[in-house]
Amino acid sequence: MPESPIRKLVPYAEQAYKDGKTVYHLNIGQPDIKTPEVALDAVKVHSLDILAYTRSEGSEAYRKKIAEYYHKNNIQVEHDDIIVTTGGSEALLFAFGSIMDSDDEIIIPEPFYANYNGFSTASDIKVVPVISKIEDNFALPAIEEFEKLITPKTKAILICNPGNPTGYLYSKEEIKKLAQIVKKHDLFLIADEVYREFVYDGNEFYSIMQEESIAENAIMIDSVSKRYSMCGARIGYLVSKNKSFIKTALKFAQARLSPPTLAQIASEAALSTPQSYFDGVINDYVSRRNTLISELEKIDGVKVAKPKGAFYCIAELPVKSADNFAKWLLEKFDIDKETVMVAPAAGFYSTPGVGLNQIRIAYVLNENSLIKAVNILKEALKVYKD
Amino acid sequence: MPESPIRKLVPYAEQAYKDGKTVYHLNIGQPDIKTPEVALDAVKVHSLDILAYTRSEGSEAYRKKIAEYYHKNNIQVEHDDIIVTTGGSEALLFAFGSIMDSDDEIIIPEPFYANYNGFSTASDIKVVPVISKIEDNFALPAIEEFEKLITPKTKAILICNPGNPTGYLYSKEEIKKLAQIVKKHDLFLIADEVYREFVYDGNEFYSIMQEESIAENAIMIDSVSKRYSMCGARIGYLVSKNKSFIKTALKFAQARLSPPTLAQIASEAALSTPQSYFDGVINDYVSRRNTLISELEKIDGVKVAKPKGAFYCIAELPVKSADNFAKWLLEKFDIDKETVMVAPAAGFYSTPGVGLNQIRIAYVLNENSLIKAVNILKEALKVYKD
Repeated sequence: MPESPIRKLVPYAEQAYKDGKTVYHLNIGQPDIKTPEVALDAVKVHSLDILAYTRSEGSEAYRKKIAEYYHKNNIQVEHDDIIVTTGGSEALLFAFGSIMDSDDEIIIPEPFYANYNGFSTASDIKVVPVISKIEDNFALPAIEEFEKLITPKTKAILICNPGNPTGYLYSKEEIKKLAQIVKKHDLFLIADEVYREFVYDGNEFYSIMQEESIAENAIMIDSVSKRYSMCGARIGYLVSKNKSFIKTALKFAQARLSPPTLAQIASEAALSTPQSYFDGVINDYVSRRNTLISELEKIDGVKVAKPKGAFYCIAELPVKSADNFAKWLLEKFDIDKETVMVAPAAGFYSTPGVGLNQIRIAYVLNENSLIKAVNILKEALKVYKD
Repeated sequence: MPESPIRKLVPYAEQAYKDGKTVYHLNIGQPDIKTPEVALDAVKVHSLDILAYTRSEGSEAYRKKIAEYYHKNNIQVEHDDIIVTTGGSEALLFAFGSIMDSDDEIIIPEPFYANYNGFSTASDIKVVPVISKIEDNFALPAIEEFEKLITPKTKAILICNPGNPTGYLYSKEEIKKLAQIVKKHDLFLIADEVYREFVYDGNEFYSIMQEESIAENAIMIDSVSKRYSMCGARIGYLVSKNKSFIKTALKFAQARLSPPTLAQIASEAALSTPQSYFDGVINDYVSRRNTLISELEKIDGVKVAKPKGAFYCIAELPVKSADNFAKWLLEKFDIDKETVMVAPAAGFYSTPGVGLNQIRIAYVLNENSLIKAVNILKEALKVYKD
């Protein structure tokens, strides 16, 4: 299974800590945002005397509330279209396992979330990348680019919307374009929509589940991890109107018995999170993004795609190898014993040689830390020699 | 993926409930035993404000305590020999994925836990059964029986000890016999030891991890589910002294990010469960088993293998198809509106046509319910026509 760009750097970061450096983590997707109290409190008052299995597809009460949440988000699905999974990760694994056999192919616009590689390897399927470019702000490639890649082994297209690592938000027109392709070639369209709530600047999020023409083709991956800053809950959902797909995915769910029970209690309660929580979080992310982008743009030779959603961006650096630069930052560079950890973006591409001078930045730190971290980047780039 | 014998019956059970019948569930592995309070209380007093990921291999503090638990059980492993998984299920999946490629083979004494089939299908590997017999009380087949089945594609032998569904406990001599085979043929020996604590009649449990000669071959699967009646926690462990195996399995763990955090809090606390809890639980299971076996033995034509561990037994019934009988029980039979759900044992065999007249009984009900349930079986067998 391929190494993630982050894991490769962990030993260097650990050494940096040992050397007494403070490391600003621009590399990870673990937000510093507090989990809604309503979710944390729910497990404090649990009345279980046996911590038992729930149904393999998640408790019915919880799935009914999830359906209500979707209805409020203009997504018309019912509780029996939903399987509760152990994180979005498991939802992806079940989706891959249910629709593909060994050696089948899935087309993914790259750069993409590095773990899609891991799940593909685990499922013995082949990722076929279609390149989206920083110059185009990572917009969807033209339909022809997809069609060139479709073979008899192609079973699905996978998107992440809003995107990790790009922060790109697909427009309604782009989703309709994808719908047209999957309809014409009889493919599944899998959309990882775990960042649905993180959409900025008045842009509107359009789910693949709103595209009625592809009700049988559409598979949505969702998760409570980022929405409620509950990464450690390990609760996700697999959602589809395709009954035969859900029936197959349920067999995978039954084989692993049940998603975690305590986490379902917290996640069900999280659905009652007040809107004010999200408003506050979105405000924070918008300010952070604005700060981050404006600070990055001040650095000579840095190119950055302004994200419309999620909390990541890709930046191109004036270096040959972002991988070497990231290691050097941790090992050799600091300002007053402070340095920065960034994720080299090459790990988010599956085409060799692409994105070598790019990094992914997660803006999951407060603004002061972001300013300091970007300043460290700036000073480092002044002295760094490839 | 193959259907489990239990899931096939669920619709009939649901109909039975609709018909107003009470159903005694002798079919499921969800114990009615209370979870230790120390575990349930730990999550009530959590002080988290962000429900964050833990390390992919589980928190270090927790793994160190798990190692201490093993030391007390004469198993000399350290925290870095342990990966915390999302249930024993995930531990098995990681093990299969780490040591086998598509079409590789694993030898499993049958009858075996039905979900081994599901995990094998998901991992695209082939289960090669070696038959153990009710007449022999499900003892390990002769070495020659294993050796007949070993091909260049054979990568591992998997046992469940004490066994689900047989309740069989392998002796030290049998473990040594297995060690000899895996050593000679350079195979992995995977042991699902989740029922370690449930050993009766003064018998001694001998772990594959105590067999030093196979330190590099041995992979142990463990779980808190049954030990502390915490099936819904979804916490298991993958344990091995083979560093290269652990390194590969860690990649699978990293791809799914982290095991559930709240459940790790409960499970870490569960390690402080007082011995009195286990003494009470074991006493209960021994009484239940004794009651169950003696009641079953009173029924004409029923043959039963007395379990030495876990909380299951296999019983042979004087019927042609236990599958049809189980459906008929739910659909057509009751005594004062009460009936019984049993698991047809055919689903625990992968050799077609074997075990058709057998059922698995889980003695996870209190004694009064067990007596009533066996009485229903007895009366049902008197009138049932194949």
